[in-house]
Formats: sequence, C-alpha cells, structure tokens
Amino acid sequence: MIGSLPPGPLNAITDVPGVRVGQTTVIEGDSVHTGVTAIFPHGGNLFQERVPAAIHVGNGFGKLIGATQVQELGELETPILLTGTLSAWKAADAMVAWLLAQPGMEQVRSINPVVGETNDGLLNDIRSRPIRPEHVTSALEKASDGKVEEGSVGAGAGTVAFGWKGGIGTSSRQLPANSGGHNVGVLVQSNYGGDLTIAGVPVGRELSRQQKENNSGDGSIMIIVATDAPLSARNLERLASRALVGLARTGSNMSNGSGDYVIAFSTALECRRRADEQLHHVTELSNPAMSPLFQAVAEATEEAICNSMFQATSVKGFRATVEALPLESTLEILKKAGAIKAQA
Amino acid sequence: MIGSLPPGPLNAITDVPGVRVGQTTVIEGDSVHTGVTAIFPHGGNLFQERVPAAIHVGNGFGKLIGATQVQELGELETPILLTGTLSAWKAADAMVAWLLAQPGMEQVRSINPVVGETNDGLLNDIRSRPIRPEHVTSALEKASDGKVEEGSVGAGAGTVAFGWKGGIGTSSRQLPANSGGHNVGVLVQSNYGGDLTIAGVPVGRELSRQQKENNSGDGSIMIIVATDAPLSARNLERLASRALVGLARTGSNMSNGSGDYVIAFSTALECRRRADEQLHHVTELSNPAMSPLFQAVAEATEEAICNSMFQATSVKGFRATVEALPLESTLEILKKAGAIKAQA
Amino acid sequence: MIGSLPPGPLNAITDVPGVRVGQTTVIEGDSVHTGVTAIFPHGGNLFQERVPAAIHVGNGFGKLIGATQVQELGELETPILLTGTLSAWKAADAMVAWLLAQPGMEQVRSINPVVGETNDGLLNDIRSRPIRPEHVTSALEKASDGKVEEGSVGAGAGTVAFGWKGGIGTSSRQLPANSGGHNVGVLVQSNYGGDLTIAGVPVGRELSRQQKENNSGDGSIMIIVATDAPLSARNLERLASRALVGLARTGSNMSNGSGDYVIAFSTALECRRRADEQLHHVTELSNPAMSPLFQAVAEATEEAICNSMFQATSVKGFRATVEALPLESTLEILKKAGAIKAQA
Amino acid sequence: MIGSLPPGPLNAITDVPGVRVGQTTVIEGDSVHTGVTAIFPHGGNLFQERVPAAIHVGNGFGKLIGATQVQELGELETPILLTGTLSAWKAADAMVAWLLAQPGMEQVRSINPVVGETNDGLLNDIRSRPIRPEHVTSALEKASDGKVEEGSVGAGAGTVAFGWKGGIGTSSRQLPANSGGHNVGVLVQSNYGGDLTIAGVPVGRELSRQQKENNSGDGSIMIIVATDAPLSARNLERLASRALVGLARTGSNMSNGSGDYVIAFSTALECRRRADEQLHHVTELSNPAMSPLFQAVAEATEEAICNSMFQATSVKGFRATVEALPLESTLEILKKAGAIKAQA
Repeated sequence: MIGSLPPGPLNAITDVPGVRVGQTTVIEGDSVHTGVTAIFPHGGNLFQERVPAAIHVGNGFGKLIGATQVQELGELETPILLTGTLSAWKAADAMVAWLLAQPGMEQVRSINPVVGETNDGLLNDIRSRPIRPEHVTSALEKASDGKVEEGSVGAGAGTVAFGWKGGIGTSSRQLPANSGGHNVGVLVQSNYGGDLTIAGVPVGRELSRQQKENNSGDGSIMIIVATDAPLSARNLERLASRALVGLARTGSNMSNGSGDYVIAFSTALECRRRADEQLHHVTELSNPAMSPLFQAVAEATEEAICNSMFQATSVKGFRATVEALPLESTLEILKKAGAIKAQA
Repeated sequence: MIGSLPPGPLNAITDVPGVRVGQTTVIEGDSVHTGVTAIFPHGGNLFQERVPAAIHVGNGFGKLIGATQVQELGELETPILLTGTLSAWKAADAMVAWLLAQPGMEQVRSINPVVGETNDGLLNDIRSRPIRPEHVTSALEKASDGKVEEGSVGAGAGTVAFGWKGGIGTSSRQLPANSGGHNVGVLVQSNYGGDLTIAGVPVGRELSRQQKENNSGDGSIMIIVATDAPLSARNLERLASRALVGLARTGSNMSNGSGDYVIAFSTALECRRRADEQLHHVTELSNPAMSPLFQAVAEATEEAICNSMFQATSVKGFRATVEALPLESTLEILKKAGAIKAQA
Repeated sequence: MIGSLPPGPLNAITDVPGVRVGQTTVIEGDSVHTGVTAIFPHGGNLFQERVPAAIHVGNGFGKLIGATQVQELGELETPILLTGTLSAWKAADAMVAWLLAQPGMEQVRSINPVVGETNDGLLNDIRSRPIRPEHVTSALEKASDGKVEEGSVGAGAGTVAFGWKGGIGTSSRQLPANSGGHNVGVLVQSNYGGDLTIAGVPVGRELSRQQKENNSGDGSIMIIVATDAPLSARNLERLASRALVGLARTGSNMSNGSGDYVIAFSTALECRRRADEQLHHVTELSNPAMSPLFQAVAEATEEAICNSMFQATSVKGFRATVEALPLESTLEILKKAGAIKAQA
Repeated sequence: MIGSLPPGPLNAITDVPGVRVGQTTVIEGDSVHTGVTAIFPHGGNLFQERVPAAIHVGNGFGKLIGATQVQELGELETPILLTGTLSAWKAADAMVAWLLAQPGMEQVRSINPVVGETNDGLLNDIRSRPIRPEHVTSALEKASDGKVEEGSVGAGAGTVAFGWKGGIGTSSRQLPANSGGHNVGVLVQSNYGGDLTIAGVPVGRELSRQQKENNSGDGSIMIIVATDAPLSARNLERLASRALVGLARTGSNMSNGSGDYVIAFSTALECRRRADEQLHHVTELSNPAMSPLFQAVAEATEEAICNSMFQATSVKGFRATVEALPLESTLEILKKAGAIKAQA
C-alpha cells in the first residue's frame, strides 16, 4: 500500500536474516498497560560480535539510554530494549544483569545497554514503574525470528498514536537485485500525534469528526532499523535519518514533546566487528549506493507505523480508554481517495 | 491547499516583516540558465545588527558556504545568497566585496558570507562559472519586500525538480493569536527528485506515463526559513529541521547526491544582537511553544516547493529541454483524488 | 598553582552560589569501593525551575544517562549523579523514585535523570552493582553548600588516575570585575590515564620509575561545570568543550576507552526557565564575552583533577591496591622545575 | 622535545608517504603579507581516488569552505588550501578552475573544494583580497614531497601567534611497530593567542615582560592531519579532535574569536575510495587500536605549532611590525625549567 518497493515475506523486521524479536506484555487490571520489546541484531554473542550501528535523533525529548557510546564507537554491543518511559532505567539494569550472566561474559566489567522508551502514562500507571527484571528477562529469552506480534503488545501495550491506540508495528522492503537485493526492516513503538495521514490521505481529518482527544502531538516514537546491506556506521546514521521521512509522511511534525529516535544497525557478516581484532577487513556500500536504501527505509517506516495502528486493539487503561483506529471507516476513506483499490 | 494553517497575505517569505528578496536571472542563449537570489533578514546593517540563525543539514552533499560559523555563533551577519553550484565561491567573494564597501564597514576585516547552491548543470553551462560580480550586486541592490517572483528566475533559472522544471518558490503561514500569532515564511530553490507527491497525491506516478527523464533523485534543495517569532539559535535549529518534514511529504528521500540544507533566522527585534553588546537582553519562546511553529514550517516548505514547480516555465538549456509541470493534468489528478475542490 | 585567575574562597564548585554537593561513600571490606556524588544547581525544585545546560562529549565511551534530552532542550531538570559504571541505571532509577516523591511532583510522568559514571572495576566489585537506592537518597538528601570532600569519596571511592588513586576533586575561578566578575566551579570524578602532567611538569615520567601499572589510559573522567554567568545553552556547550583544554594539560589524550564527558549549567537567575512560561525574558552573555570564561573553566578543570589526586588516599580493593600519589616526591619534582615556589 | 614518540625522518607532514605540500608567498611592499599553502593527500587524481577524511570543529569562528560535504560523505575529493580570511572564496574558485582543467575532469560538474583560512589582517591588507588565481595555481603545481618550508611562508606569511610571528609549522610522529608502525603528520597555520606554553613551560609569561601586544587570543589556527593508518571517516574524526589536545597544551583556550579547525585524512591504499565503486573492500583499524594514534597527533600538533614560531621571521607589515619569538631567551627559559637539556 505504501511506496513502490515490495515487502519481504513477513513484512517484518525479521525479514532481515538473523534479527530476532521478543516481547513481554504487562497488564494488571486497568491500571497497568506496558511491556518490553527486545530486538537482537543476531543470534550470537553481541558483545563479542558487534554490529555497526548508529542513532539519529529527530527530536531528543526522550530518555534513550546508551546513545553517546553508540554514536562514538559506531557499534551495538547489546540487544535493544523498548519499554515505557519511567521504567527505562530498571529495564537497562535488568538487561545488564542478564547479559553479565551469559556464558563468556564472566570478565566483562563495562557494557552499554541501549534502551528506548515512549510515554505510556495515559493508559499505564507509569509512576509505579511496573517493569520488573523478570519481564525483561522473559522478552530477551523469548526472542525469535519469524512473525512479529503487532499492536497493543510488548512496549506498545499502553501507547497512543494520533488519539487512537498505537503500539508495536513492523514492515520491511526488499531492494531489486540490481540495487543490491538487500533487505531493510523496521520496527516501531508508536506513541505520537499530528495530522494522521495514511498513504497521503488525510485520514485523521475525516475521522476527527468522531475523535479528537489524546492527540497532543507529544508522546514519542522509537524506530528500529535493521538491514543486511553492509554499511559503515556513518552510512547507517544517514539511513537512520531517512526513517524520519516515513514518519513525516504519516503527519508528524516532530512536536516539542515527542522523543523521535531512530536506531539502525547492519547484520551483514562482512562488516561485523569481533571484539579482539586490531584490524577489521570489511566490505561496505559506497555513498552513491545508499539511495535505494533511503527509499526502502522511508517506505518501511511509514508502513510499520500504519501497521502499529491497524493491529492495535482498544484499551481501557489507567486514566482513559483509547479506541483502536476504526478500520472500516479508514478503509472507506482510503478507497474514496483512490489510495487503495481492494483491501489494505 | 497544503496543511491547515492560513498563509500570510503574499503567501511569501516576505510576509515576515522586514525580509527582503532580490533576484538576478542570467540567461545567455540556450547555454546559460542560472542566476542569483538574495535574502535579507532585515533592511539595516546586518553585520552590526545580527539575527539569531541556525543551519540544519538534511544531506550534506553540497557546497554551502559559511555553515560552521553560523552553527558556532548562532547568528547571521550577512544576507543569504543562492546560486548554481560552481559559481558559489565567486558569488561569496562578490558579496563580500559589496558588503565591505557599505557605509560603516570600513574597519571590518572578518565576515562570514552565507551562500547556498544547487546544481543547474543540466540546463546551464555550469563549468563556465557564469556568475559575475555585477549579477550578485544587482540581486543585493534590488532586494525589496513585497511580492517574490517564482519559478524559472534567479537561482532557480536552471534547476530541475522531479524531472520537471523547478525553481524558486515561496510560501508562508500565520499562527493563530492563541499560538502567538507569529509568521513563518519559506523560500526554496528546488532542484531534486523522487516520487512527486502533491498534497499527499502521488502525482508523479500518474504523470510519469509521460515523463521520466532527469528525475535522478540527486540535485539538491536549499530552504530558507524566516520567522518573526523570537527564537534562540537552538530553537531555530529545531525549526530548521522541521522544514525537512515538508520536503519529505513532496516525495523526496534525500538521496545521496542531494544537498538538502535549511537556513533559519528570526527577525524579532527582541532577540537581535548588536555587535558591541556584552549582555543581550532577549525574549525567547520556550521549548513547548515551538510546536505550532514546527507545523507552520512543514506546511510552508511543502507549499513553497509546489509553488516553485507551478510557477516554473519550460526551458531549453545547455544539455536538455525541461518542461514545466503540466498544470492541467496535475490539477485533474488532484481533483480526482479529492485533494482539491475547485482550482489550486 | 594552575593558571593565572584566582580561585574562589572554597576553591570548589560550591563557590558558585546555590550549588550543592552530597556524597555517599560505599565500602564493604576490600571488595566494594564505590559511591555516589550528587550535584544540585540550586536549592529549589529543579523540575519547576530549570537551568540552562549543555553536555559536551570528548570521547563517548561511557554510559552517560540523559544526554540527548539535555542536548535537545538545553536544560537540566534534575540533579546530576555520578557513580560507578555498572550501577548507573540503578542510580538513575533511585533518583527518579526520590524526585517523584518530592512535594509538587505528584503529576509528573516524564523526567530526565542525568547520571554519569566512570569505571571503578579495579578496586570495586563492579559486577555486583552494589549501589542501592538508599545510597542515592542519602547523597541527594545530604547535599549542601560549603566545603566539598575530595579524594577517595563518593563516586571517587574506587577510581584510579594515571596509575595512582584518583577520585573526586574540585576547584573554582573568579573572573575580574571588568570581565563580569563571574564564578566558574568544576567538580571531577577522575579515573583515566596518560602522561601525568602537573602545571606543565611531566611528573608522571619521573614518578613512573616507581609506578607504572594500572595507567592504561582508559577509564574515563566526568567533569561538572557550574557558573553564575548568564549563558545560553549554546554558549554553555562551548564552555563545556573548554573543560577538555584543562584535561589535555594534565596529560590525557582522551584514549579510546575513556569516557570523557562535560556537563555544564548556569545558575544565573536571569536565564532560569520556569516550566510553565511561554516566553522567557533572559539576559545572556554575548559570544565575545565568553573568552574569559573559557580560560576560567580550563584552569579550574586542570586544578580540580590535581586536587582529586592530591586528596586521594591509598586503597586496597577488589583486584588491586592502588597507592595515593606520593605528595612529597611530587612536590619535589614541581619545585625543581620551578612550577611551585613554596608548598602546593 | 615534545612528548615521547619519535618524529619521522623529516619531522613533517610529508613523512606520511604520498603527501605533498606546495606554497606561494605573496608579499607586496609592507602592505601585503599573505599566501597560499596547498596540501595533497596523494599524487593521483583525488577526485577519482578519494581518501577518507573528517573535519573537527574546535571553535567555528572561521570561514572553512567545504566542511559539510566532507562531514556527510566522509571523504576528500580535492587538495586542501590554506590562505588569509578574506581571500578564501577567491582561492576556492581558482582551485576549482584548475581542477576542472585537469585531464579526466571534463565531465565533472560538481566538486567540493576545501579551503581553510586564518586572519592575517594585522600584517596584510586583507580587505584588498590580494590572492589571485595564479598564486593558487602556483601553490598547487609546486606541490611536492620532501622538506616543507616553515615560518613566514605561504598561508603563514602574515599570521601572528601569542603576539609573536606565527606561520606554517609541521611535525610528525612514528608509532612503534607493535602499535602498527603508522605515521601521523601535522601541518598548522598558527595565528592565535593565549598563554604561550612550550613543553609545559609558561614561556609566554616570562617573555611577556618584553612583549604583550597583539596577543588577543583571537585569530585562529588551521590544523591538517595526515596518516597512513587505515581509518574510517568516523575514526578520522576522533583523531582530528585529539589535535586539539596538542593545541590546548600550547596555552590556547580556543577563545571566542579563534577559528580552530582540524582536517584529517588517511592516505592508506586499503581504505581509498574509487569514484565508481558500488562496494568498497576496506581494511580499517578497530576502535581500541586508535589510542596510540591519539597520542601521536597530540604530540605532532603541539610540536608543529612550536616549529611554526621557531622558524618564523620578524615581519614589518600593514598595520604593525611583529617580531619573531626570541629564540635565545626562549631556550634559556626552557633549559632553566629542565624542559630541554642541550639545544632544541
């Protein structure tokens, strides 16, 4: 529906070979709706086999943990966690504990956990900081390739987008063989607002006749980008910044209170960094070869956001009830504008 | 047509009081199609009365002159020039000569000209570097408030956008009184490509049945943002970055070879900097007050780009002929999608 | 001894009026030597009365928490904590709990704790992550103006510098009245290495005849800069970067494994930001007025580092015993080189 | 004299194999003292065989041309020029003209000249912008390996450092074989001020009994760093930032009006980028392997600055006469402090 490049078989971040996702959804009565989503660049020891990585900050109103070291060293040495704002530090500590206990990690005395968050404080009793170590451990241990659950799950259990229920969404794009045939996968935790636009159609303005609350523009989005294209950290940073192109097309203006972050990594074996190497022998795409990837990440981000909303379910939470996007009316509007022919 | 905020009376960057624009179009037979566009933040001595300013780099494939000093000191001390790529240094030197000769500038031995460019090498014999000092002087001296000429003029004489003729475009937005009532004006030099999208409608895909050449995605865009909102250089940088939101919505993915730069300044008297002050007594918008401005700059940028194409005329140039966007078919497509009711 | 500007009465960060420091030292037998150092910009509610702030990253091999939001919004909304590397996330969570429980904070659902760290894993059983919430609370509640304890205390209990015992150190500088009369105070947590140089004298090379171990160059330093000069976040960032000038003069080359961070804030009432203001009426120093402050911060940082070592005591710890810098031989060397006349 | 690593055979940037330097000194009576210094990373076609490169901005008060593209693409595609402030744009245009006329460049329509400058306006009639195209061409064509002329030559003809005559200086360091055996070479154009410190000894304070004028702290320094170590653009940026460590040790506080820039590049064949490659197969040093290079660049920069002053000659110029550093008294002071044994 979005863009012109084809999605991978799962239309998910896990279309990038090696990438694994694990999620824990934490619900207690109406008051707690939160969770943890874990993303692994590969199935090996990430601390010993690091992947090149980059972080791009669209709007830094957010508590992203681990940013400066990724930016300095251009690499990721842990999985990435997503959760609710005020549980971010607990989640980081729990992941560190889990990682230090893994085999081969006995001598590690410095490690840089990367934890992103968005604020689920409308549906979740966020001040109680409900994430416990076992929630984190569970997400880490459940991580697998294959289909990724979307909507009101994991770190998306309590998030809100454009006044409707947001959540976890994912999508992917495959480049044609003559552009390298690489895959780009995106996973988002959507929790922001603006003028909801789907495939260019101002769906939000039509629907807002019915629903206008809780669309403050503030709130944040975390965007995780995986690719099997062999990229330097510098070109991963450029790739990360193009995820915001997709974000912009959904109607976000990256308002002041929205923490809009992109974390990108490459899973390519030919640019992996073993911790004890003095020299890395790497293969990397040239600068001009980046353009098709820029298109891919823009399209996959836009679609992952749509998916996060299309798959979300209504939630009665701590301070409000937030409805899922009404699919029928939405599809109606899209059809009327010619943006879709048959079904989404 | 674009967004939901109203434009100012001229729908131009000159809706921000004090801003002046001057342009010289340079045409010689078919081989030279280039020019100079000059933007003044105010009508006084800019070196003595500096305005807070910021530069945001979307994609740095471009020769923007003066960037690091604006980023360090957070201020602009000269007008901004736009021109064709290989004439940028000549234009900078000519502006410096003109500025040093102004009254009150006799003791100045350091000055930071700001000159942006895009590559008009398809329609213009760019390697001949045809801009001469008198072209620059003329643009600087002609600068005035009021209506701004758009399309194939000034620095837009030879530019190409989405395979059609690009050029100079401008637009503005006015905030409602309860958001401060400020004005945001944008002027662009459009010379890039992608998947042309107008008001969310994929116009380029429809039209491409007729026209696909010269839409490489490379090429660049310069975006100048003016506002009378009183802003710190830090918040001007945030404002500048939101111009890229508008750019993204037109179908750009900021491809590798596109130099995508935004220069933003505030004309507000209450944050102007006199060169000899030890202390500045300033009034500045708070961070949360920025969000309406973010929306305004996104909308004005998107519309300025559309205007640059709608106003452009076909040009037979150095290595090709590039047609203007076919307005009739374009409007037809927009109407069919419900994006416009009557005429644009 | 260092530089040419005079120190304030306490030669401490607390010479900047309003600044308060609190420390908890955590020692358990030989195996645990760590702690917490808390720095408050002022004695009021920091979340309601924010101070302009900036973070400069010399070398980002470190886990600094809260960086991106400070860089985006240009302000600090919590105290700053320092601790040992693997306890940083626990410390952040404990500070958040404490802050949320303060009067007037009942509705707060988003807060950005700033926590820095260096790696005390040689003297401290760092993998046990020994910092508990009560250690954090105690440092926060003990914070006071007046004299600051230095050496093997608080977050400096287990740190090592140049192969000798490092720790907490502080110093200050007062500008002459004709440069504004402002104060600059610095507090460091020293834990790095290199070619120890004191007042220009290569003390380390002389002393290394006796001691060469544990001077890996890796390790990190956190530098906190306070000033009562009224500064924008932009100029605070420039000020922060000049703390590295002082660091360089002590013999650091900012080696790969050293996390070298500077956090700077202004306590000036005339640039404080109340959380509910739409407009800030501020007074700020101009760019040219910054130069004397740059000198002040360079000198105070260099001297704070010296003080951290001069005041440290030998520690028998988890994996080694680290001696304090031998003061007598050090002074001898300094005298011989003419760097000091009488005593330090 | 400076540091502990050995210099290369020439103690010059040309100790890095392939690097070539060419200089034109422009003197007209007393009023014009300026010039051009050109640095080539290698002797081939730089546009076709690009070298990874980075720019680090210590203090951005300066007109460095070409910065944003080097930062975006991580590569250099032209030689680097140094000259006087107000001639920078003319010099850039002249270099572009020369480059476009080279064999194999007939189809080039975009090129990013890199030109740095410092302000020689005390000794040079800077407002007359005396650099002409033939001065630039001459420097480019004369460029050669081998010995580099230092002091009051080329772009250093009219510069002033610490109130004494500054100029062009160069130095190099060789790493031991077990650290990779790489070379680091530095060339500076010194034109700044502060508290002149040589090998840790506050020489300026002693000498200032005689000379205090023209040491404003403002003025700028351009630092060019070459290495044959195979480095990514990211690690070149880190290397560039450590040149400021050497600058700090000479007594600079990077005052407000000083443009302090570092441009670093790698000449290693194994990380060179051919313009038409889709994939680069490169070898790069790992992050931990950078630390010895950080030491090397700090030492070479400090020594290059000293050399620029030691080799400079007194100049009677446009608005003043500036004396060379008095070598005899300087050496006396250094000996007394034990910083040198015999002669420098």
